Amino acid sequence: MQMSMLVLVLLGFGDGAPWGYEGEKGPEHWGHLNPEYILCAEGHNQSPIDLSAFIEADLPQIEMNYTSDAVAVVNNGHTLQVNFGPGSSLTFMGQTFALKQFHVHAPSENTLAGKHFPMEVHLVHADEQGQLAVIGVFLEPGEANPVLSAAWQNLPKAAGENVALSPGITASGLIPADADYFYFNGSLTTPPCSEGVRWLVMKKPMATSQAQIEAFKALMHHATNRPVQPRNARQVLQ
Amino acid sequence: MQMSMLVLVLLGFGDGAPWGYEGEKGPEHWGHLNPEYILCAEGHNQSPIDLSAFIEADLPQIEMNYTSDAVAVVNNGHTLQVNFGPGSSLTFMGQTFALKQFHVHAPSENTLAGKHFPMEVHLVHADEQGQLAVIGVFLEPGEANPVLSAAWQNLPKAAGENVALSPGITASGLIPADADYFYFNGSLTTPPCSEGVRWLVMKKPMATSQAQIEAFKALMHHATNRPVQPRNARQVLQ
Repeated sequence: MQMSMLVLVLLGFGDGAPWGYEGEKGPEHWGHLNPEYILCAEGHNQSPIDLSAFIEADLPQIEMNYTSDAVAVVNNGHTLQVNFGPGSSLTFMGQTFALKQFHVHAPSENTLAGKHFPMEVHLVHADEQGQLAVIGVFLEPGEANPVLSAAWQNLPKAAGENVALSPGITASGLIPADADYFYFNGSLTTPPCSEGVRWLVMKKPMATSQAQIEAFKALMHHATNRPVQPRNARQVLQ
Repeated sequence: MQMSMLVLVLLGFGDGAPWGYEGEKGPEHWGHLNPEYILCAEGHNQSPIDLSAFIEADLPQIEMNYTSDAVAVVNNGHTLQVNFGPGSSLTFMGQTFALKQFHVHAPSENTLAGKHFPMEVHLVHADEQGQLAVIGVFLEPGEANPVLSAAWQNLPKAAGENVALSPGITASGLIPADADYFYFNGSLTTPPCSEGVRWLVMKKPMATSQAQIEAFKALMHHATNRPVQPRNARQVLQ
């Protein structure tokens, strides 16, 4: 075994990956692959969900301050993740969460009235106590997305690779001008499927080019969406 | 050991009870008393909570149809539980849940803007898939509550005892005339602390006499409320 392969296996990539999107390590098995993934099977507040049957609610505006630069794009074997340096954040109901990274799924994980979009961006934020808030943005085919164009210029092709990014790429170009959103209480959409995550999904999709969608799918080789989960006692606010 | 004591121990009552409200079996230890209680420690959507920082929402009226009779009052060692025969139900957002039982906690488990009421009734409903909806009603000192007066006429004094009830006691006298409510997504407030429970807490309290509060507290010997839990990503709708 070459050193580079050893590193990949130790990181949980390749055939030794602890979970995936297909076969015996696919979403329907996540909850039983590892005791720490038990919520993937047993949780009652899991993501993604189908966005429908909304409750009209007096939701506050999300204040987004996306001024810091992306520092690297990582192929972690499950997605392309763009990491950010400190300085970007959102404030929601008086609580501030720092932007850590964004990544994409194809097709979309959340669905809107039963319908998938070809891709969905998740902007992952954490507060100082480690509480998470994720902004979801549906992507539909159209013009190339300038943030993806800049961040994906030189793609890390193998799981475990990462590429440093030149300064100047911020996350603001991923948010629609009309930032109206759906709110629900959910989880991480990948193992360990931790709950207590604030989900803020933009009502309006953004555009991405068919070439960007195809470039991502070609790297991943398969769909990278967890199926929608039961809502149980949760309401989707709009 | 006498047969009656043996039965009580087998049922999980007395010193052998699997959980309680005090000491080593108290709420802060529930999550580690039994692997099946793990959500009591690790859940992010637990009940009770403090009702505050509401979101104004367009909540539908709850349709309650409380016509069937209470059949028995049970002292289960943790509360007095009044069981119902089939026929009573609530309908919420198109889903119907059958009334199974009500029981009380003293002081209240949920708090309103940080304040406990002396008692809280929980009316527990289940749909055909076993999904739960609980109506919470705060009780404050005043006139005797006629439902409690009727159901608690001949109290089962020992844990594990139950007393059959004469026909004619329905749950309707536990619901305030103004049935406006708070909605949140929570859990059972006792082990195994299962999540996915719809909580509908009446805004208006009902009255109960000081004698009824004291009678319950005298049987239980100690407070029977789980402390309020973190809200995490949950919103309380009103």
